[in-house]
Amino acid sequence: MDVVSNIIQMQELAGKLKSEGKTIGLVPTMGYLHRGHLSLAARARQENDIVVMSNFVNPLQFGPQEDFAAYPRDLERDNKLAESAGADYVFAPQGEEMYPQGYGAYVQVRGEAAEKMCGRSRPGHFLGVTTVVLKLLIITQPNRAYFGQKDAQQAIIVRKMVEDLDLPLEIVTCPIVREGDGLALSSRNTYLSPQEREHALALPKALGAGRALILQGERNPSRVREEMRRVLESSPGIRVDYVEVVDGKTLQELPVLQGYVLLAAAVFVGKTRLIDNIDLEVAPCTAAC
Amino acid sequence: MDVVSNIIQMQELAGKLKSEGKTIGLVPTMGYLHRGHLSLAARARQENDIVVMSNFVNPLQFGPQEDFAAYPRDLERDNKLAESAGADYVFAPQGEEMYPQGYGAYVQVRGEAAEKMCGRSRPGHFLGVTTVVLKLLIITQPNRAYFGQKDAQQAIIVRKMVEDLDLPLEIVTCPIVREGDGLALSSRNTYLSPQEREHALALPKALGAGRALILQGERNPSRVREEMRRVLESSPGIRVDYVEVVDGKTLQELPVLQGYVLLAAAVFVGKTRLIDNIDLEVAPCTAAC
Repeated sequence: MDVVSNIIQMQELAGKLKSEGKTIGLVPTMGYLHRGHLSLAARARQENDIVVMSNFVNPLQFGPQEDFAAYPRDLERDNKLAESAGADYVFAPQGEEMYPQGYGAYVQVRGEAAEKMCGRSRPGHFLGVTTVVLKLLIITQPNRAYFGQKDAQQAIIVRKMVEDLDLPLEIVTCPIVREGDGLALSSRNTYLSPQEREHALALPKALGAGRALILQGERNPSRVREEMRRVLESSPGIRVDYVEVVDGKTLQELPVLQGYVLLAAAVFVGKTRLIDNIDLEVAPCTAAC
Repeated sequence: MDVVSNIIQMQELAGKLKSEGKTIGLVPTMGYLHRGHLSLAARARQENDIVVMSNFVNPLQFGPQEDFAAYPRDLERDNKLAESAGADYVFAPQGEEMYPQGYGAYVQVRGEAAEKMCGRSRPGHFLGVTTVVLKLLIITQPNRAYFGQKDAQQAIIVRKMVEDLDLPLEIVTCPIVREGDGLALSSRNTYLSPQEREHALALPKALGAGRALILQGERNPSRVREEMRRVLESSPGIRVDYVEVVDGKTLQELPVLQGYVLLAAAVFVGKTRLIDNIDLEVAPCTAAC
């Protein structure tokens, strides 16, 4: 496995591989890899000749009051994990390489999907995400790029960017990987104290309660949302950022739950902001609803 | 010469040509071709194996009060001219093909170069330009893309986008082509009545007066700007939009004229907005200045 930090070098390498007829799978990460990232790499390994993992803590997607400086980093450990997951190349540029002095080009997806949920809570976040992802796609020229369903809104926005800008590649979304007790894997879990780690379980618990209601026949999104919020607000150490029950493809409000539905929430546990979601296919309402 | 209107078809064609080792030159136009466009095609013909000319009146770069509906169109005539200029392909998509219902991805270059001059007079204009140009670059995959120096600010902004987004291609700027009496060629010249056509000559005249001052030793940008403005304001039928004397690479203000300098102006002649510019290398100030 080779580690590349230079944009031109990575781009020429990718161009050479493509000209040889090889397919490339890109796994974009901000490093501090966990089993979630490795599941993306494993899927990319199955579907492509070459796997490129990028490792770049993207300053552009952090707000001024957010945790860019504190975000955990361990490139050496990450490279070992990437290699063990079957990556052929790690692209790990420095900040100045990606955003030199006077940098000025930004890509934005507008519309409801980008403006609610994390888009509302973290102004500028998705502008940073789409800008860095577009750069990574242009640099590594993948046939497929792999994103985790944990960042469901991100995957939707990136897919929209790819479609609208005519980028000739596929966005592949992979399932959330969870700890045994249900907590979704996140590099930010390392911020949690043992007590906060306990409190954080309210997040998957609330999502599970919402799903249980739907499985019992509830088709009113407000009732499901209220139940999820009730679980979160009655849990110690949790401050709710948002709770949403929406169309899983467009993030639009649904008058009645039906089809592909996303239950999503963001909470603060102490100073740590965590997000999680569950997606499910909801059968049409029967007479019992 | 083939005319292609479908994005996927054009993109697959370009990909096939690239995979055969051919170089592609793109000439992006809004059609109603004149000798300025054809000079770009001729340059592209010299420097590339394949020449693609795009022909698309981009609604996104027109303001709500601007001339999108009135903009002159003649695709049949354009195709003949493109073929005579040596184009191998014309890419002429419909509006819905480029911006389907619910379109949402936009590319923006921020910074002084994008926010002054036409950026200030036409809010959203350059957002529309960079978005369509990025799409065209992704669809046609050129090694080189050709822009006219008449739209000097556009060329600077597009070049900045290409650099910042790591697009592996060269932006080539070609000289302004003028009528015998000095008026820069523009598809919008067709809007001018015979009398307005006369009035419009004040624009190259003012630029020439600014240049003459510099050649006489003037190095104060304000004095050059004032002289250009004086010529325009003393001409009949002219309403000044802006007059600028700036660094030709960055469009920044210069305390003293030196190096690569751009004299640029935009005026209204009746309802028609025209832009023009002159660029020149200014020798360092001598004792006589």
